[in-house]
Formats: sequence, structure tokens, C-alpha cells
Amino acid sequence: MSNTNKTALVVSAHSADFVWRCGGAIASHVKQGWHVKVVCLSFGERGESAKLWKLPDMTLEKVKAARRDEAQRAADILGADVEFWDIGDYPMRVSDDTLFRMVDLYQTLQPEFVLSHSVKDPYNFDHPLAMHLAQEARVTAQAAGHNLEQKVLGAPPVYAFEPHQTEQCEWTPNTFLDITDVWDLKRQAIECMAGQEHLWAYYTRVAQQRGVQAKRNIGITTKRNIEYAEGYMKLTPTVVDTL
Amino acid sequence: MSNTNKTALVVSAHSADFVWRCGGAIASHVKQGWHVKVVCLSFGERGESAKLWKLPDMTLEKVKAARRDEAQRAADILGADVEFWDIGDYPMRVSDDTLFRMVDLYQTLQPEFVLSHSVKDPYNFDHPLAMHLAQEARVTAQAAGHNLEQKVLGAPPVYAFEPHQTEQCEWTPNTFLDITDVWDLKRQAIECMAGQEHLWAYYTRVAQQRGVQAKRNIGITTKRNIEYAEGYMKLTPTVVDTL
Amino acid sequence: MSNTNKTALVVSAHSADFVWRCGGAIASHVKQGWHVKVVCLSFGERGESAKLWKLPDMTLEKVKAARRDEAQRAADILGADVEFWDIGDYPMRVSDDTLFRMVDLYQTLQPEFVLSHSVKDPYNFDHPLAMHLAQEARVTAQAAGHNLEQKVLGAPPVYAFEPHQTEQCEWTPNTFLDITDVWDLKRQAIECMAGQEHLWAYYTRVAQQRGVQAKRNIGITTKRNIEYAEGYMKLTPTVVDTL
Amino acid sequence: MSNTNKTALVVSAHSADFVWRCGGAIASHVKQGWHVKVVCLSFGERGESAKLWKLPDMTLEKVKAARRDEAQRAADILGADVEFWDIGDYPMRVSDDTLFRMVDLYQTLQPEFVLSHSVKDPYNFDHPLAMHLAQEARVTAQAAGHNLEQKVLGAPPVYAFEPHQTEQCEWTPNTFLDITDVWDLKRQAIECMAGQEHLWAYYTRVAQQRGVQAKRNIGITTKRNIEYAEGYMKLTPTVVDTL
Amino acid sequence: MSNTNKTALVVSAHSADFVWRCGGAIASHVKQGWHVKVVCLSFGERGESAKLWKLPDMTLEKVKAARRDEAQRAADILGADVEFWDIGDYPMRVSDDTLFRMVDLYQTLQPEFVLSHSVKDPYNFDHPLAMHLAQEARVTAQAAGHNLEQKVLGAPPVYAFEPHQTEQCEWTPNTFLDITDVWDLKRQAIECMAGQEHLWAYYTRVAQQRGVQAKRNIGITTKRNIEYAEGYMKLTPTVVDTL
Amino acid sequence: MSNTNKTALVVSAHSADFVWRCGGAIASHVKQGWHVKVVCLSFGERGESAKLWKLPDMTLEKVKAARRDEAQRAADILGADVEFWDIGDYPMRVSDDTLFRMVDLYQTLQPEFVLSHSVKDPYNFDHPLAMHLAQEARVTAQAAGHNLEQKVLGAPPVYAFEPHQTEQCEWTPNTFLDITDVWDLKRQAIECMAGQEHLWAYYTRVAQQRGVQAKRNIGITTKRNIEYAEGYMKLTPTVVDTL
Repeated sequence: MSNTNKTALVVSAHSADFVWRCGGAIASHVKQGWHVKVVCLSFGERGESAKLWKLPDMTLEKVKAARRDEAQRAADILGADVEFWDIGDYPMRVSDDTLFRMVDLYQTLQPEFVLSHSVKDPYNFDHPLAMHLAQEARVTAQAAGHNLEQKVLGAPPVYAFEPHQTEQCEWTPNTFLDITDVWDLKRQAIECMAGQEHLWAYYTRVAQQRGVQAKRNIGITTKRNIEYAEGYMKLTPTVVDTL
Repeated sequence: MSNTNKTALVVSAHSADFVWRCGGAIASHVKQGWHVKVVCLSFGERGESAKLWKLPDMTLEKVKAARRDEAQRAADILGADVEFWDIGDYPMRVSDDTLFRMVDLYQTLQPEFVLSHSVKDPYNFDHPLAMHLAQEARVTAQAAGHNLEQKVLGAPPVYAFEPHQTEQCEWTPNTFLDITDVWDLKRQAIECMAGQEHLWAYYTRVAQQRGVQAKRNIGITTKRNIEYAEGYMKLTPTVVDTL
Repeated sequence: MSNTNKTALVVSAHSADFVWRCGGAIASHVKQGWHVKVVCLSFGERGESAKLWKLPDMTLEKVKAARRDEAQRAADILGADVEFWDIGDYPMRVSDDTLFRMVDLYQTLQPEFVLSHSVKDPYNFDHPLAMHLAQEARVTAQAAGHNLEQKVLGAPPVYAFEPHQTEQCEWTPNTFLDITDVWDLKRQAIECMAGQEHLWAYYTRVAQQRGVQAKRNIGITTKRNIEYAEGYMKLTPTVVDTL
Repeated sequence: MSNTNKTALVVSAHSADFVWRCGGAIASHVKQGWHVKVVCLSFGERGESAKLWKLPDMTLEKVKAARRDEAQRAADILGADVEFWDIGDYPMRVSDDTLFRMVDLYQTLQPEFVLSHSVKDPYNFDHPLAMHLAQEARVTAQAAGHNLEQKVLGAPPVYAFEPHQTEQCEWTPNTFLDITDVWDLKRQAIECMAGQEHLWAYYTRVAQQRGVQAKRNIGITTKRNIEYAEGYMKLTPTVVDTL
Repeated sequence: MSNTNKTALVVSAHSADFVWRCGGAIASHVKQGWHVKVVCLSFGERGESAKLWKLPDMTLEKVKAARRDEAQRAADILGADVEFWDIGDYPMRVSDDTLFRMVDLYQTLQPEFVLSHSVKDPYNFDHPLAMHLAQEARVTAQAAGHNLEQKVLGAPPVYAFEPHQTEQCEWTPNTFLDITDVWDLKRQAIECMAGQEHLWAYYTRVAQQRGVQAKRNIGITTKRNIEYAEGYMKLTPTVVDTL
Repeated sequence: MSNTNKTALVVSAHSADFVWRCGGAIASHVKQGWHVKVVCLSFGERGESAKLWKLPDMTLEKVKAARRDEAQRAADILGADVEFWDIGDYPMRVSDDTLFRMVDLYQTLQPEFVLSHSVKDPYNFDHPLAMHLAQEARVTAQAAGHNLEQKVLGAPPVYAFEPHQTEQCEWTPNTFLDITDVWDLKRQAIECMAGQEHLWAYYTRVAQQRGVQAKRNIGITTKRNIEYAEGYMKLTPTVVDTL
């Protein structure tokens, strides 16, 4: 599917997070020829499926199946390769086995960058835990003595994508990604999330607001049009040749 | 001297600051064909010329002349176009005339980016004031109603270059510029500062430390060599097409 | 117009700020019988009137008149009593005369609360200056020895209303005001701002996002509907009898 | 005991914390007809019972019994309903069983608000852990898929009560509760803590200082008298109809 | 009066601040043989003399005289050498003449350390301004080219003494000074402030609370008794030979 | 080996950390007659031994043995008493057994101060974990009811030594230790780390930079020479008799 050999990794706590929060980044990089791997740690089956639980005769397995189906369709639309690790949610717990599985994935995939949740979120403790896993696995994958037969990882930058209430999460975007030309795909992927229809308009407006802000940060007099954008908080410095 | 039409602006509180703190950025962009304008707001004649003041029969004018000469030679080596505004130091005061002069310079120059001091510095109040001038003039230059005959400014990003004691200044680098291939020029420029020889080794080591850190941030296993770097704190978000 | 004896004060740097940023609070309190006084320190004539400046034969006085007219109509819709102090913008400068005028207003008005800009805003230095004026005048108005013939001020809380790019301004909302039932008035007032039509949709979306967040903070299972809200950052503690 | 149907929940790491830190809030809300449930996670048997350990023939069980007795008497005075979960202290460890027990309590109690420790405390790691439990259980109790037979929780605000050295804990009060008219009860409850008599005067002075500050925040010219208060740091925004 | 040649400088915004906030430090260092100079920038005549203004036939000059008399007596008790610069309060304004006067004082006095207000105080803008003066004058006094006939200043550390509502001022004590054996003097000095009797008990309790905290920071099992202390926030690093 | 009865404790995540980060403090206190105990939690066998892993026929045990040998030699040079707890690295995990072992060590050793890593480090999660262990064990060792037969711990201050990229770790030095007269020993100890030769020059420069900064903080005009220093972030307040 890709015509470059570049890859990216997304660590999503629940199965819809990657759509709302970085669906544009996925679609945009896939369009640029990248291979994007998404790991859904859980289906959000307990914490983010309220609408499904109102249906008659619902069980945990049925909720998971419905959520998996939605997420798979969204991933297909965006062009991502998705895995479901089913480690549970609300509360999420990360075992060392899960950590080492993520380390292996890093070393196999050798991603150019990683996307995950904000480091803090007082409304949702699964989110920072997913980010911690993404970070700790990354550092472990850099260790020469961890897997002798594997290639050690370089230093892919980690970006925190946008949480629901940014200011309460001490999340400040330092990077805006223009997603104008893949917005239609992101919106289609969003519409796969039948169980959370109340969020469709919300995250559409998020993309519009970030678009306006991105435009302001390059100068409103520039010719370039930005209608939709996604905000990211890069956690470590960027190395450049030109400022 | 330049073969692109891109320009950059440096606002330096004292006449040596631009050398220690962003001499590499100047030389590197000049080498890439940019036109780099440096404004030295003062000569550092009172606060940063202790060695000169120990010479016999010294006067304020003689100190200024000596400092100007040093800075001019350093700018020539780096390839920068330097102006001396002589507004005084220790304490520095910025009049509205100075502000409007800076606004005019922004609108004439239309720089792609701006470099100045850290926003906070408990060891030196001229430094944050210079940065404030750089920021307030930038915003004023964006106003449609300020100078009708002038072209309004876009949104050039502002970077804070490295202060002397970074942690005390709440300065955190989010950008490293590789200056390995212009290091020789920066070192030559540094050596023009005869009055502050005690800082030559200090800022050489700063460049080496930032080089090691830059290397670590791109991955120590990468082929690319970085021996010298400069750190910057970009104050506003970056807009990108690829993460 | 008011049937309580409660008053509130809004300190707006430019003549449209009070509409975008706290139009709902104004309309809501007026509806509850309050008297709301708005001080527009400037017309935003230089910095926020780009569209007007593109018209033929425009002068500073014409821009001011147009902006004044828009703001007056918006204030009328919201039910506020507006004053225009015309102290200039981009850059704004506050003299001691302006400070003392504000002190007098505080002592005459005896407001229950005060609304102004965020304490920090790297995109706009007039905004924090207006807030500083609002705060310093408030403290001065509390001084027994300032105006012997006047009643000293109590301790009205100061709220910072929402800036354009919240995270860059270190602005975190700790208070959401439900403006659902006055939204129509706010939208009408917004539409008076003919010169900044590009912001109409932006601030409509801001109100919708804050509405969703307010709802989440009271619990999405509550019966109460909140469609539109405004966010505020209260700068000092609240004293309560019930948590 | 209550004549409203409102309830509140207090999560106290050690068996005396609820007395020093929020005894006034408990007594005040009980007086207003609320039902207040206190969970003491431990007796502070190892870390906060130094005086008891100096008695002859002391054992862990005797210390726990003495501490339980003190806390029960204090709770009776304040009018609270107290539970002792006895999960151990210094160091405290929270199992998933404890988490789910707390989730059940949230869903059964449906509290209007929750009180617990500061999020950070370099002098005491049991404190932030208790707060983390209070927060994570709250979020889990909001999950539709956790306990199908239970009513999901709304969004009760969480307040951090005052730690011993506030500034070292990055704890900033944004809410003061007037406890003047229940102070006598709080003082009586404090005096139940025979093992920590050195703290009686300390927390009396805390209440007096917060009383003075509360008074200052409503204006020292107001008629209302506040002699004793408690400070709280509310962790999430408040939704209001009037500012 | 002193038997060492060490000196210290206190920069007090209003004429009573030095008593409440660092009276213990003054008395303690005087007792150790130091010369302590206090500069009262204003008398607090407008902002902190409410009780005096209620007396009949009061004028600004009478208030100043009464406040001066109180402060002089307090300084005498503490053993400090006090100067009154009478630059006005509420609002305080610092001219360059005042700055240079302070620079001269620094160079003449050559203090070992400097005490002034917190860097931020949303309840009182004179306080941070006094601190800014103390800091900017200190840096200017270090400049070789400022006063050729004067000895340049070394690097005396600057400490921020305790503001009224510490947490709101982002003031965190990193240093506690034991003032137990000079407490009686501080209390006597406090009682000179007839116009602010409501603060006597408040600042007595502050000293007691800081005493308890100081004791806790050296270990409650240590033999040493600390009943009264003052908290300080040292703004720059300490250089030591032993940790 | 010691001629005072003072002791200090160093908690080092990997076996080389104590050399780079506080080798000067160790040598200096040993020279002053202290007993310094170093606990190496791991050998850094997986994460910090890349060079060793490139040798033929390498095994985990061989790497550990080589690292242990290097660290033992470095400790001998510095005069420290070192223990190797071998709990593993990348990722490090701390069991309650390890915690209680550390508690016992605290109570046996009764150190005057403790040195460990920065509280945050996005590049290395073993580092903050080691610091957390140092802090939690310290608090547990203060509990009267933990080990009845042991003497409870006082309140030894905890210092965070310097991480690799200070600004990214929110590490700000508030204490500089002059290590000029033990620098030769530190350099010799550094040179024991054959596997990390690339860091020798880096940490030599760190010591030189901190030396220059320490000098600046005592005043560059003072007679005292400081060529090498180490920076520390003390986590709790200092109690003093003289400012």
C-alpha cells in the first residue's frame, strides 16, 4: 500500500481515539506513501460505549465486536493497519508482557514518529497510561541489550495528540498539521463511530478551529489556505538545518 | 551576497550577544543564501565591558567604539548586516520611537524568522526587554492601520536563543540547529570579542553540549554527525505537512 | 433597564473584544437585571480593522467611527452601557490619567465582578495590558487614602475571558457560564462586527465547544441541556458556604 | 440523620486526615442536612502514630484499635458516617479490589462532591495515592459498561483539601469554605486525636489564617464575619449561571 | 552597633512590610553583628492606612508622619537603619532617579544579601514592583561602566520574603530562618503598627506555622527546638562546599 | 575510612550514574571524612552498555560483570562504599522487597543527605523510578511503626543530581557544589567507564560549565576560584540561622 519505506506508529487507548485525535495525520501520511500502524489497546468497551450498552441483551463480547468493527472500518478508510490488543479499559492496566510486545513492535516497525495521548488527563486515566506505555516501550526498544537479534530503535519523536479538554490536561500544541486535503477521509472515518455520534460535530469543529489557528501562525496574509488541521504537542526537541 | 530573497532578523541587547548566542544560525543561513540583519540595541558598554574599563583613560565613547569595532568584525565574519542603535544598557530603556523604528524595520525587511533573548532572565533585565521589543514590534507591524504605505508583516516565528544560565531563565530548547559546518566561522567571530575572552571557551562548550544533545534527539545510531549545535526556544507553534 | 442594584464591569482592549469574548455573560447578566458597563479602551482601529483599511479613502477617524458604530450596536443588542476611551492600539499605552479614570469608575460603579483579557498573550500585547489596567485600578480603588470623598472598593473577583489561542496564553478555564438562552443575542451582536466576518463562525464554534465541555463537567447524564457556554479563568479564590 | 438527599464522599489516607483537613466541611454539610461518608483507607498505624508506639507492649493491632477509636469519635462529633478499609500505610498500596470497592461506593452513594488529598506531596506518598484512587474510581464509576446493574456516576467535582506544607505540594486553594459556625465541632473532633496533640494548635491556626484570607477575598469592608475557613483546590471547572 | 563588617539590604514597598515579613531576619542578623539597612519606598499612606484615614481631619502628610513614626520605632527595636524614600503608593511608580539612587546604595553598602517582596502578587502591584527595583538595581550595580568611582557590586543573593497569600503569589519557600530567639523583638516591632492591629495575630501565627514546618524539615526527632521561623524564596542558586 | 560520623546515601539507577552525576560530591565528602554509601540498583546492563554488546560472545552475565568491575573501581577511586542490588534495567521495576531493603538501609545508615535522579526524565524512565524509591523509602523509614527495633529516620534532604538534558527534565539547579579540588579523582573515576568513553568529555564540560556558573553566582569579582562544580536540585527547604 505504501510507496516509501517510512512508517509511523499510533498508540490509541480506546478503539476510537485514533480517529478523533489523529485520523487526519494517518490519512495524510498514508497519502504520502507511509505505512501507518495503529495499536488499539482496548475497545473502549466499558468506558466509551454507553450507547451500545443501552441496547437489549448486550454483553461485553458484543460490545467489543461492535467497537472492533467500527474501528476496523475507520482504519480502512484512513488507510491504516490496525491491531487490537484487547487489554481492557476503565481501568486500563499494562503488564510487562504488553510492554515487551510494544517493544517488539517498535523494533520491527522502526517508526519515524509515534502518536499517543496527552501525558496528563484528569478526566481519563487510561489516556496517560497509554502514552506512558508508548514512551517506556520506546526507551526500552533503544536498549542494545534487550533483544540481541533485533535492530535497536533510533529516536522517533513522540507527539501527544489533542485531548478532549486541552487546558485541563496541560496540553499545549506546538505543531499543527494541515489536514485540509484529507478532511473528507477523516470525516468518513469519524462517521464509522456510530456509538458516539455526539462527538462527530465536536471533532469537526476542533479541526476547523485548529485550521484557523494554523493559518494565523503562518500569517493570515499568506496565500495558502488551511481549513482543517490537527494539533500536536511534540515532547522532545526538533533538530533542523534551517530555522 | 544572498542568492535567495529570504531574510532573517536578530535583535541583540548588547553588541556581543548575537555572536555567542546565534552566531551559528547567522553563518548557516548566510551560507544558505539568506540576508541576515542584526540590530545591536546597545554596545553593552556599561554592563559587559569590564575588561575595557580597566584600561587607562577610558571613556564611555571609547568603550562604545571598541565594542562596535569588535561587533562589526564579528558580523563581517558571519556575513551579517549589522546596525547599532545605541540606546544604552544597564539599564536599557525602550522608547516608542525605538519601537516604531523596529516596526519599520520589520515591514521593510519582511523577515522569515526572528531571533532574540529569553523571555525571562533574572541575571540580566536588558535581555527580556530586548525580546519584548522584538515581540511587540512584530505584532505592531502586523497591524493594517499602522503604516498605510507599508506592506504589513506576516507571522514570522520568534525564537529565543540560549541565555547564560538556562534553567534559571525557564528557557527550554525545543529546536536544535546543526552548526557543525559553520563552526569555524562562529569561533572566529567569537574571538573578535577581545574584551570577553573568558567566555570563548564557555560558549564553545555550549555548542559542543548542544551538538551531543542534538545527536541524541535524532538517534545516536544515525549516520549523521553533529559536533556543534545551537539551541532555540520557538515561542509559537509550527505548521507542517508531515510530522 | 436593571431591576437589581448589581453591576459588572468589562474592560475590553479593542472595541470588538467584549462581543466575542464575553457577549454571553453581558446578555445573561443584563437579562438577570444587572447593569453591565463596558469600557472599550480603543477601537482596535489599527490592529483589528484590516478589512476597513482596504476601502478607498480610509482615514484613522473614519475607521474609528465605523468601529464605534459597530460596537455601539452590539452593546445595545446585549444591553450593555458602553464607553469608548480611545487611548489607541497597536501599541496600546496606559497613562496614569487612564489608570485614575478607571479607579474612579470602579469606585462609582462598585461592580460585583470584572471581566478582562488573559494575563498573557504572545499574539497581542494590548490584551495583557488591558488586564493589568483592570487589576491595578481595582487594587488602587481599594485604597482608603486614594479618594477620600469616594467609597472604597470591596473585592470584586476578576475573570479573564477567553483569548484566541488559549493554550499559548497559559489560559485555563476554571468557570463555564451557560449562555444557551442568550445565545441568539450574542450571535446578533457578533454579526454587528462587519469588519471581522471571518471570526463569526470561529466564535460560534468556541461557544459550542465550551457548551459541550460545560455539559461534561456537570455530567452528561444530567437532564440540563447546555448548548452554548463561555469559559472564564477566575484569578482569585471563591468563598462559599457549600462545596 | 439527613434531611436532604445529598451526599458527599471523603477519601482519607490515614484515619486522622479527614479531621484536620476537612472536618469543617463535613460538619457544615451535615448541618445543612447532607449525608457525608468518610473512607479511612488506613489507620495511619505505622506512619502517624509515633506517640502510641512509645507506650509499653504496643502492637500493630493495639495501635489500629486506638486510632480507630479516636477516628470514630471524631466522625461522630462531626456527624459523618465513617468506614475503615485497613489497607495499610507507609507505604500504602492500592489493589484493584480496593479500586472496585471504591467504584461500588461511588455508584451506591452518588456523591455531589468528593474530598481527598493533594495530587502531589513530597513528604507523604500515601496522600497522592489516596487522591489517585479517588479520581480513578470516579472515572471508572462513570463507565456504562462497568456495573450493568448499577446506576453510572455523574460528574461530582473533586476537591483537594489542604496538605501540611502547601507550597511544597503545588497546592493552591481556589475555594474557601466558611466554617465559622461549625468551628466548635471541628475543634472537638480535633481533640479526639490524642496521639497527635502537637497538631491541634497547628490546624487551629490554619483555620484562622484561611478565615482571614477568605475575608480578604470577599472584601474586608463586607459586613460578613469569617473567623475560620478551610481551603480547597477544586480540580475541574465549575459551571455557573451567574459569575 | 555592629561588630562584623557584614551588611544586608531590605527593600520594603510600604513602611510596615519589613516588620511583618522579615522583622525576624533583621533582628537576628543585627544580633549576629550585622548592619541592616531598610529602605521603605513609601509609607503605605494610601493603601495600607485605612484606620488612620478614619480619624478626623486627616491629611496625607499626617498619615505619612504617623506611619513614619511607627516604622521608625519598629526599626529601632529591630536594630535596623531605616530610610524613607517617599515615592508614593497605590500605585507605586519607580523613576530612573529612584533606580540610580538604589544602585548607589548597593555600591556603597555592598550587602551580603537582599530581601524584598514576591515576584508576583495579584493583590498588590506595589510589591512586585519593589522587588523588580531591588533586582534591576542590583544588576545595574554590577556594571563596571556605571559608576567609575564606585566599587562594583558582587552577587548578593536576593530572597523574596513571604507575601500575604503565598499560594496565589506562586511563592514557595526554599529557606526557613529560625527566629525563635529574636521573636520577642519581632513581636514588639509588630506592635508598633497601631494602624494595622488586625495583622498582629495573623503574622504571629505565620511565624508559628513556619516554625513547625522548619522543625519538620530538619526532622521532628532532632533536639533542636524551633518555635518561630520566617520563610524565604531564594531566587538564585546557592554555592556550597558541603551538601 | 571516615573520621566523622556523618554518612550520605546515593541511589543510582545504573552503575555509572553515580560517577557522572555526583562523583565530585562523593569524593569531596569522603575527603571531608564522611562515609558515603552508593546503591547501584542495576548495572545498566541492557540500556547503557551498547559498546559491550558489540563484543563477540557477549552474555548478560558478562556485561554485568564488566559493568560491576568498572563501577567498583570508580567507587574505590572516589572513596565510596558501593552495593549492587541487580534489580534489572530497561525497564527497571521496584518490588516492595526492594523498597523495604532501602528502608532498612536508611535506618541503619542514618544519612545526612541523599542523592538521586531527577523527578522527571522523558529520555529514561529508570531514573525517576530510582528517585521515587529513594523518596518513598525515606518517608517509610521515618515511620515509628515500621521497624520497632530500628531507630526512625530524621529528615535528610534529598537532592536530584543533574540529568543529561536538564531543561527537558524540568530540573533546575538551586545548589552548586564546588568540586575543584577533587576534580582529578572524579576524572579518574569517569575514565573507569570504558564502555561509555563518548561521555567522558561531555561530563567534563558539564563540570566546567557548572564551575563558571557557580562562580557567577558568588560574584565574578570574588577571589575564590571555582573551576569545576556539580549542580543539584534540593527538593525541600533548607533551615538556616543566617541568610
